[in-house]
Amino acid sequence: MSADFRLKEDLPELTDRIVASYHDLGVGHHLGHCPLPNTAEVCAIARDLKGVLFPGYRTRQNLHMGNIGFHVGALVDSLHDRLTEQIARALRHDFVRRAKQADPDSEPCTKEVDFEADGQRVTIAFLNQIPALRELLVEDVKAAYEGDPAAASYDEVIFCYPGLAAVTAHRIAHALHSLGVPLIPRMIAEWSHAETGIDIHPGARIGPGFFIDHGTGVVIGATCRIAENVKIYQGVTLGAKSFPRDGEGRLVRNAKRHPTVERDVVVYSNATVLGGDVTLGCGAVIGAGATITESVAPGTKVTAEKPSLRYRTAG
Amino acid sequence: MSADFRLKEDLPELTDRIVASYHDLGVGHHLGHCPLPNTAEVCAIARDLKGVLFPGYRTRQNLHMGNIGFHVGALVDSLHDRLTEQIARALRHDFVRRAKQADPDSEPCTKEVDFEADGQRVTIAFLNQIPALRELLVEDVKAAYEGDPAAASYDEVIFCYPGLAAVTAHRIAHALHSLGVPLIPRMIAEWSHAETGIDIHPGARIGPGFFIDHGTGVVIGATCRIAENVKIYQGVTLGAKSFPRDGEGRLVRNAKRHPTVERDVVVYSNATVLGGDVTLGCGAVIGAGATITESVAPGTKVTAEKPSLRYRTAG
Amino acid sequence: MSADFRLKEDLPELTDRIVASYHDLGVGHHLGHCPLPNTAEVCAIARDLKGVLFPGYRTRQNLHMGNIGFHVGALVDSLHDRLTEQIARALRHDFVRRAKQADPDSEPCTKEVDFEADGQRVTIAFLNQIPALRELLVEDVKAAYEGDPAAASYDEVIFCYPGLAAVTAHRIAHALHSLGVPLIPRMIAEWSHAETGIDIHPGARIGPGFFIDHGTGVVIGATCRIAENVKIYQGVTLGAKSFPRDGEGRLVRNAKRHPTVERDVVVYSNATVLGGDVTLGCGAVIGAGATITESVAPGTKVTAEKPSLRYRTAG
Repeated sequence: MSADFRLKEDLPELTDRIVASYHDLGVGHHLGHCPLPNTAEVCAIARDLKGVLFPGYRTRQNLHMGNIGFHVGALVDSLHDRLTEQIARALRHDFVRRAKQADPDSEPCTKEVDFEADGQRVTIAFLNQIPALRELLVEDVKAAYEGDPAAASYDEVIFCYPGLAAVTAHRIAHALHSLGVPLIPRMIAEWSHAETGIDIHPGARIGPGFFIDHGTGVVIGATCRIAENVKIYQGVTLGAKSFPRDGEGRLVRNAKRHPTVERDVVVYSNATVLGGDVTLGCGAVIGAGATITESVAPGTKVTAEKPSLRYRTAG
Repeated sequence: MSADFRLKEDLPELTDRIVASYHDLGVGHHLGHCPLPNTAEVCAIARDLKGVLFPGYRTRQNLHMGNIGFHVGALVDSLHDRLTEQIARALRHDFVRRAKQADPDSEPCTKEVDFEADGQRVTIAFLNQIPALRELLVEDVKAAYEGDPAAASYDEVIFCYPGLAAVTAHRIAHALHSLGVPLIPRMIAEWSHAETGIDIHPGARIGPGFFIDHGTGVVIGATCRIAENVKIYQGVTLGAKSFPRDGEGRLVRNAKRHPTVERDVVVYSNATVLGGDVTLGCGAVIGAGATITESVAPGTKVTAEKPSLRYRTAG
Repeated sequence: MSADFRLKEDLPELTDRIVASYHDLGVGHHLGHCPLPNTAEVCAIARDLKGVLFPGYRTRQNLHMGNIGFHVGALVDSLHDRLTEQIARALRHDFVRRAKQADPDSEPCTKEVDFEADGQRVTIAFLNQIPALRELLVEDVKAAYEGDPAAASYDEVIFCYPGLAAVTAHRIAHALHSLGVPLIPRMIAEWSHAETGIDIHPGARIGPGFFIDHGTGVVIGATCRIAENVKIYQGVTLGAKSFPRDGEGRLVRNAKRHPTVERDVVVYSNATVLGGDVTLGCGAVIGAGATITESVAPGTKVTAEKPSLRYRTAG
């Protein structure tokens, strides 16, 4: 009693049908000689960047002032080479995509562009931002500690807070996005989304001292602008009302469609703020579960009138 | 100053107490000679299946029309053997479970059934569905691209969208569920739930062109039926109202208790639709945060009357 | 055409600037000779503990009554050594933190305290709780099976239910928290939060037979008290109203700020219960999406008056 391996004789025919489906459907495979960025490598790069931004916590312990220079020097050297390669791949892929979008029948000539040189230029510009990124992130650590009475220390925030993990990944992704890197920022954002349940589009601009508590279910759209010292809770959406379409009914892909949040704003759990023309003024407080589709004046506290509760006693 | 290893002399006695608790409590261990499906292997199989469904993206790069046949042929061959073994284990486990449920004192004789042969039969039936699954999934990719103005390309959707990852895992799990495979579909669904925050029961029937945006917190129940070109957002629940119980107060485990969703429906973020007798008619739009417990006519847009907001100015 | 490696000559200067930022910012690095707990090792310990609590499911299969004693004995022996080391690290780190908090200029002398001996004492006390933890968890397994008509068997619950995974991690984290272990309980809680989307603070006290269905987005605060046979659904927050501050405007970090939930309570999806002075009485039922900020009497069913729905027909 066991599997009958003669039945496996039909598998080659099945393989042929599967391969034929790659031909026939067109979409849904990437077969060709132009390598895509590698997801596993991009995630490994993001993890190593975290080790440079917050040294001594996770990826490598027992660091001290006597060996930290060697450790960081070796990481930066390796990050240079690996990021250059992945960004070059993303740039080549995007070049081909744009060319095919402009003329589907074209055979884009990728030999004319030096993607490696462009990738290296962007990589060096990005790595040079690490000290500035650390300044932002230290403000984020302090904001988390100040904002949560359950936090016992900065170290606990760095070790344990998914909100800080998500903001760290976002600041990396946003820096790469701002330098015009395609695809890789989104890969980093979704790696972080999977780890934390917090979904921040790399396009969102976020000031220092940003704190997300608990965080699961948070969505922050691509064209959000968030100033300093903003605090938001689990389940908050900063999203779009509806999508503008052009004359032919196609989505317009670059309009501002997500809110602006000024400094010192607090948005409590599961509140929803929608629309590119909505501004939450400086110091505004949005109550749990409120739905906001119009601007809120500075210093205003908005709470949703709670629906009346109906009580019934069993029996 | 260090740990005192003489204190470890009590550990054997502790071990005895732990092992005794396996005897005494009965529930909560699986000790015996009937191997269960292996979670790590089931997840590895699901990942390899994704590599066949969307070749060239993650698990293996640098594929082209000259080597894809070898690559897919080798994967299909390996998937045949590994799936056969895991499904045979799941069938044996379920056989014993049912026998014990019918008669708790029985010693089910598993020698009379050829679980390996049954496992192979189901595996081959499943693998033969791969081309049809790819057709469905290509429609899902197109729907995601059409539905999100932030998506730059089909490749970004396949690489980065948790909604597509969840629907891919669901289509695999649902196909196995429909072939009567126990346990393994749920293992695949919860692997995907952990990765994406999207919880789709393998029993749910979902048509082509299904798009979940952002997705964290989405719950789709076991008896949902969803037609083509449906779009839902983060935090949406398609759930049950309450559970029917039989005369003895036990849950009835097979009634339809989740909604039916017709084609071209959109359900915005954090809306909740409850009940097996609820149908969202063709083209209906459900606004963010609405709670729906009755059917909605085709072409109808339903929004929850927003609770009035209370504004207070600080100071 | 490739990267120009002469451009790498600037990387050492960048490394210097990064290292200087560790000096200058102070916060955000852990450089020194006092090792922190290791996240990867803490997660490996938590996984091995699950293998002792529910043997035969994931980490090791093919266990039976003839070999289980050896298997558990070896695991317990290894867990003793590894937990002792990690807890000693956490105790040393917390000792230094408290000393620096009391006097920022102090050089705390860690040689006077035998952290290893303390770590071992706590570890043995913890390991001795394993049989009692199993009794609680078996009640949790039964509650999940009883509470979900889609569950086919106890084995499915143990294999597949993120709610059970989260409660298991919580019972481990809470036992360590109650023994005064710093940092490690939070590391375990956030490891579980990342896997399940369920965020339970290790401080929360939870009785037997606790069931969380679906679970994504659930938040349970540090000072919650939950009695036996309570059931909650996805998106439920048991949280704080606002944080009390002391005379100098600093957060008070130890007040009871989260609800008390008596036995047999059910809280349906996306309901929010806020405040340390709120008690949900025995047998109370809280409807989906309700916001509760005052106590609910025993046996009472509370539903939020649904906002009236507005229907518009397209065209």
